[in-house]
This record gives sequence, C-alpha cells and structure tokens, in this order.
Amino acid sequence: MTPAFEKLQKHLKQLPGLGYRSSERIALHLLVEKPDRLPALVAALEEAAKSVRRCTRCGNLAEEDLCGICGDERRDHGLVCVVEQVPDLVAIERSGAFRGVYHVLHGKLSPIHGVGPADLNLAALNDRIRGGTVRELILALSNDVEGEATCHYLTEHLPADSGVTATRIGFGLPSGGGVLYADSVTLKSALDGRRTYS
Amino acid sequence: MTPAFEKLQKHLKQLPGLGYRSSERIALHLLVEKPDRLPALVAALEEAAKSVRRCTRCGNLAEEDLCGICGDERRDHGLVCVVEQVPDLVAIERSGAFRGVYHVLHGKLSPIHGVGPADLNLAALNDRIRGGTVRELILALSNDVEGEATCHYLTEHLPADSGVTATRIGFGLPSGGGVLYADSVTLKSALDGRRTYS
Repeated sequence: MTPAFEKLQKHLKQLPGLGYRSSERIALHLLVEKPDRLPALVAALEEAAKSVRRCTRCGNLAEEDLCGICGDERRDHGLVCVVEQVPDLVAIERSGAFRGVYHVLHGKLSPIHGVGPADLNLAALNDRIRGGTVRELILALSNDVEGEATCHYLTEHLPADSGVTATRIGFGLPSGGGVLYADSVTLKSALDGRRTYS
Repeated sequence: MTPAFEKLQKHLKQLPGLGYRSSERIALHLLVEKPDRLPALVAALEEAAKSVRRCTRCGNLAEEDLCGICGDERRDHGLVCVVEQVPDLVAIERSGAFRGVYHVLHGKLSPIHGVGPADLNLAALNDRIRGGTVRELILALSNDVEGEATCHYLTEHLPADSGVTATRIGFGLPSGGGVLYADSVTLKSALDGRRTYS
C-alpha cells in the first residue's frame, strides 16, 4: 500500500489487542469504507487528550480536580480499594460489587524493573489516611510476588494510630472454573484462602 | 469514566473488529498507559487522510496519480483482476499468487441496495479496455447473487471487438476444508467447478 497508509497501520498495530490484520482492516475502514469517521475519531482523540487528567485524590481519570467516583457523595468514602492501574478500577466498577472509593497506585513495587515506593501514587494515599476518613484499605493488587511485596509495604507503612484496617481481596478458583483446569499457583492461593463452610 | 473518555470509546467502538471491551482497553492505553502514542496516532491519521486518495487508473489506494501496482512496470498490465473492494486486492496481494494489475469496482451491483452500474468504478475500466493493453479480465467477485450479476453485466458490456477474455476465479472447497464441513452453496460451486483430473 502507500507509505502514509503503512505508517497509520504501524501506529494502529501498537495499540493493545490489534495485530497486523486487524490494524490493516481498521486503516482500510477509515480511509476507504467510512472516510467520514476519520475526522470525528481524530477530534475525539484530541479532546480526550486535552481534557482527561488524573484525579488529584485517587489517581483515576478525571476531567475536573476530582473524578466522578471521588465526587460522588453517595459512595462510602471510608472504604478505599487500592488498585494498580485504572483498568483494574474499571473492571471492579463493571462488576457492580463495590460502593466504596478507589486509590490507583499506577504500578506496583518491582525492584527488578526499578519501580520503588517513590514511583507509586503513595503520597496522596498517605494524605487520605492522615485525613481521617479512611476506615479500611482493600488491597486489590495482583496475585504475584510484586503484588505481595506492594501489599506488605503498604501495611508496614500504615501509621499505627491511624485506625485503618488493611484487607486483601480473595484469591482462588475463578467463577465457573474447575479444580482440574486451575494452575498450581491458583490452587495454592485457593487452599491458603479456604474458609469455614457452614 | 469521564465524558471525553466515553466519547473516544464510542468512536473507537465503531471501528471494525472492536467491541466494548477492546475499545475501552485502547482508550485507557492511549490516555493512561502510553499517552505519548496519542499525538503520533493523530498525526498518522491526519497524514493518511490528507495524502491517501484513489488511483485514477484502478481505484486502489494511492498517494500519486497512480498506485504502486499500476506504476510498477514489472507487473503484467494485460492481466486485470477485477475486485469489489480494496481489502479484496490486499488479500490477493498477500497471497503472492498474482503478478498482474487490478481494477477496484468499489462495490457490486445490488438493485435491492440501490447500487446500479453508475455507482461502480466502471468508466475507468471501460477506458482501460478501450486503451488496448488489457488482454484478460479475471473477475474475482463474491460467490453470491450480486457477484454473479456483476460478472454478468461486465461480460455483457465488453465490446465485441476488444479481444478481451473474461474469466472468473474458481469456487469450491477452501484449502484444508473437508466436504463434511462445507455448506451446500460451496458444495454446489465445487461440483459445478469440477475439472478433469489427470
């Protein structure tokens, strides 16, 4: 195809979930099938890039100082779910299972990748804890070594007199998953996380 | 999420192959994970929209008057493969099985959808045939009623003295496909298209 077409395809291919074929298909769609959609997409990209920023309280996406969740008075602001990334927050929101608020760390501790406490959104979390409204921190971090290290760091650095409880989300078999198909780490988590059955 | 985020997601979801989850993932990628990729993508989209147009000879994507294929002197310009859309051309090019040139109709005849001969890229095809270099038209149109009608129209309207042969690509079992799994229309095409086996 043409150089500009190939350049566009290259940029599309860098997006998550898009490969050679799907990026080619989207480029053809925007240039041949529905060229009227291209300016609208460009405008939406530019508008989002200009107006979307981080919530100053929790690190979620926002267009004002506070995101829609931090600004919602009907949510429980004493219950703070700590997640690694915004997509984790989106996944929990989609489940509809949580009515508290969030704190996005924008990463997890990883000495191997050079990510230390200073690289995470921890100062804002400390401010929130010192503010006194936080009652419980639900650590919804990954079930891996780095997630574990981050949980450990967070609980170690909780001020002793803050009165904040730290909990960690449950690990085990996913919904619909059988023991036969679970990997050994999941099975270990599931056994460690067993509860009295009544 | 925020209004600008949702608007961007809505525009991404209109692209072929992207659904709710994949468009959300791409929007988060461009706004949170790799915000530096967004301006580059916008620039590539704008550049492609500005510089990509139709080849005046065959209707393929081009940045000059002629596309890369029409401008390639090493290809056989007497052998013209007629396709419905640019993606069909891309698929045939990818197969590496064809060294002639193309003609893109940008559609097929469909009275039900109000597509008549005037809506197809036929004037340029007639110019090429009258030009005298065309030896064979390979009709690589769909194996359906509309593709059939378009083939019929094209062969009916070939000037009797042009000396151009019209052929149609073969239909039948796809590579790796068994008789058991083929639908009845494919099996009918395969039986109709049988050849002497030697």
